[in-house]
Amino acid sequence: MSPSVVRIGLLGCGVVGQGFLKLLQERERLVRDSVGAPVKVARIALRDPGKRRECDLSGVHVGTDPLAVATAEDVDLLVELVGGESMLEPVRAALRRGVPVVTANKHLLALHGEELERLAAESKATIRCEASAGGGIPVLQAMDHGLRTENFQLLVAILNGTTNFILSTMERDGRDFAEALEAARTLGFAEADPTLDLSGADTAQKLSILVRRAFRMDVALGSIPTEGILGMELEDLRQADRFGYTVKLLGIALRHPEGLDVRVHPAFIPKRYLLAAVRDEFNGIYLRGEATGSMLFYGKGAGALPTAQAVLGDVLVTARECVSGVKVLGSPPRHDPERRLPLDMVRTKYYLRLMVEDRPGVLAQVAACLGSAGVSVAQMFQAEGVRGEASITILTHQARDRDVREAVKGISGLQTIRKSPRAVRIFDL
Amino acid sequence: MSPSVVRIGLLGCGVVGQGFLKLLQERERLVRDSVGAPVKVARIALRDPGKRRECDLSGVHVGTDPLAVATAEDVDLLVELVGGESMLEPVRAALRRGVPVVTANKHLLALHGEELERLAAESKATIRCEASAGGGIPVLQAMDHGLRTENFQLLVAILNGTTNFILSTMERDGRDFAEALEAARTLGFAEADPTLDLSGADTAQKLSILVRRAFRMDVALGSIPTEGILGMELEDLRQADRFGYTVKLLGIALRHPEGLDVRVHPAFIPKRYLLAAVRDEFNGIYLRGEATGSMLFYGKGAGALPTAQAVLGDVLVTARECVSGVKVLGSPPRHDPERRLPLDMVRTKYYLRLMVEDRPGVLAQVAACLGSAGVSVAQMFQAEGVRGEASITILTHQARDRDVREAVKGISGLQTIRKSPRAVRIFDL
Repeated sequence: MSPSVVRIGLLGCGVVGQGFLKLLQERERLVRDSVGAPVKVARIALRDPGKRRECDLSGVHVGTDPLAVATAEDVDLLVELVGGESMLEPVRAALRRGVPVVTANKHLLALHGEELERLAAESKATIRCEASAGGGIPVLQAMDHGLRTENFQLLVAILNGTTNFILSTMERDGRDFAEALEAARTLGFAEADPTLDLSGADTAQKLSILVRRAFRMDVALGSIPTEGILGMELEDLRQADRFGYTVKLLGIALRHPEGLDVRVHPAFIPKRYLLAAVRDEFNGIYLRGEATGSMLFYGKGAGALPTAQAVLGDVLVTARECVSGVKVLGSPPRHDPERRLPLDMVRTKYYLRLMVEDRPGVLAQVAACLGSAGVSVAQMFQAEGVRGEASITILTHQARDRDVREAVKGISGLQTIRKSPRAVRIFDL
Repeated sequence: MSPSVVRIGLLGCGVVGQGFLKLLQERERLVRDSVGAPVKVARIALRDPGKRRECDLSGVHVGTDPLAVATAEDVDLLVELVGGESMLEPVRAALRRGVPVVTANKHLLALHGEELERLAAESKATIRCEASAGGGIPVLQAMDHGLRTENFQLLVAILNGTTNFILSTMERDGRDFAEALEAARTLGFAEADPTLDLSGADTAQKLSILVRRAFRMDVALGSIPTEGILGMELEDLRQADRFGYTVKLLGIALRHPEGLDVRVHPAFIPKRYLLAAVRDEFNGIYLRGEATGSMLFYGKGAGALPTAQAVLGDVLVTARECVSGVKVLGSPPRHDPERRLPLDMVRTKYYLRLMVEDRPGVLAQVAACLGSAGVSVAQMFQAEGVRGEASITILTHQARDRDVREAVKGISGLQTIRKSPRAVRIFDL
């Protein structure tokens, strides 16, 4: 079966969908030459077909049922741009029929990636999702093709534009968290409800997609320890700066002999790191491979056209496979059984900031909490505050994460502590 | 014709070749699964077959004639890792027979890329060269696959590890050029004769390869205005730092309505640019695309294993094509006719540094030279020197490159000038 035209079934026509249609039309000739046949949108499912759109849908069968599009006889390739879990059934249905899928849906891939890839393999279809992690950055295709044989040791990534914009704005303009969030909203970098971004959940979803490719391991989304940037104070960023660090919300995957250390949390990173220069709404994915060494991919993690371009990149390769009947590369690498290093056992440095009563003996109490948990102090500063308070900033040496958290719990319980300590991990390999 | 084993003819077995053999062996199973057949080295041409090597060549037909390997009946894929122009005939011969080529040879691609790609197209073969520009960074495959439909506006790249290491070392350690070059030699980042690197010629070769892909335009290597970093003084880096810049040797391609502006030269770039954080022996390729916006690829531009990994990435895709008889993507994009904006007409800012006699009227003479050439001054500083000399540092506003060079010529001719002015372009869009 080698179709003389590749017929796309498109689910959704929001800003990314409209961007995709625009690019598909503008690059028509190049697409046709590359694929070996024209690529046309045959069917489209819209939530509200009456809504005015910036694109020409003439000649396209417009409906409202995603499942009907996914199972239509005249659809060779499903492009899913609605997002969210409700798309699971249409995507499953297409793959079961052997119809390949291109999607930007990070929820779906993070929660059901393993099942969907298995379904695809069983029916000799494919599922590609470049736009789901790192937006316009062609990092998944690089891992699939040129870097397919690479053994990665480390992946550290800034994957959420909203939180990176907020942290960059706090740092650069000296604004507090609420002001920076408001600025992000004004510029369209934060949604009305930014919970998914601020909580780190969005980063965890994207991280799980990248980890599947880079480490050939299925990591259950719920198993990834995830902390967001809520509660981050301007004073923490100022302290970071003072010690030569900058603060980023990171997705981390690090291979240890005992297993893979996977986690999402804000972290102090040295200013000399290239990731420290990834600012504002941009994303950056740093990889360290056995053969290639250090590598960074940088670009826009969101936005209509960057995302649409990533989708078109996947469509090009997938449509070519439809026409030729041959996959770009054969069987995907086997996945290793999941072997994890629990966060409790990860060794890391910490930054701690405490507000204490300014009287004799307090420092000794704090030091005792750390010492009895086996956490040793690398640097400590005490500054006089107002109203009889003192501020203590501590940078620890490497210690087991569990031990530091236990020490922090102990410190929180001290009578002389005015406010829960701030604790941020330092990522400095 | 779908071979049950893909037989490689390998030219050269230096450090990259040995790295390639090592990776091919270690990743054997993954390579076989991806390609759909085993990939074996069948023949190898060595300059000195008697030399001891770290790799197992049992079962491989070892000879000394590259052309014999390129034309052998039992070779399905030619991997050329010798480098240099002498490989032109073997590569031509393979392509003429329809045997695809993977090469790391930047000389060959920069000088004969147009011809070799035409030969490949005529015989339905391919020529891939990921390792020839940006070493281990998978930027060419990204442009070929995921970013194939992107229209790039700008490419600015640090493509030479030797010069980047030298400039980084001068800047960080306050060492002069000769000391930094010596450090690069000691660490193996500079060859015994580093002329190709220091002159900018290596950067120009790699730039021409990247420009062909990114802008679909054949730019004759000899037509690229090229300046290296010879003559760069520590004082220039100090001045750059003072004004918020860092100094990098750049390959630049910038699309203007009048044509493509392509050039290689050292430049002051703002410290806030991500490229400013690309230090030491690393390479960085910054791209700006119509749809994707800003993007950066960062990694090792040289070294045995990074280069070998890039070669293996190309071999994977090419071997798969051998097995399936189908190209990953169809006809490559058509190339646009070469339309160039000559350097003379490019508008740019400049940094100038002069040593003049410290007496009245000198500043007026210098200002007159600039003014009569139509170059206006943005900032000017004069500092007292020793022996009746004064040092003048000037940052200009944007002006036509030709006009600035004319002004510099005028200044050089002044009686009161003690030494040829230093002139470095500022790249600040």
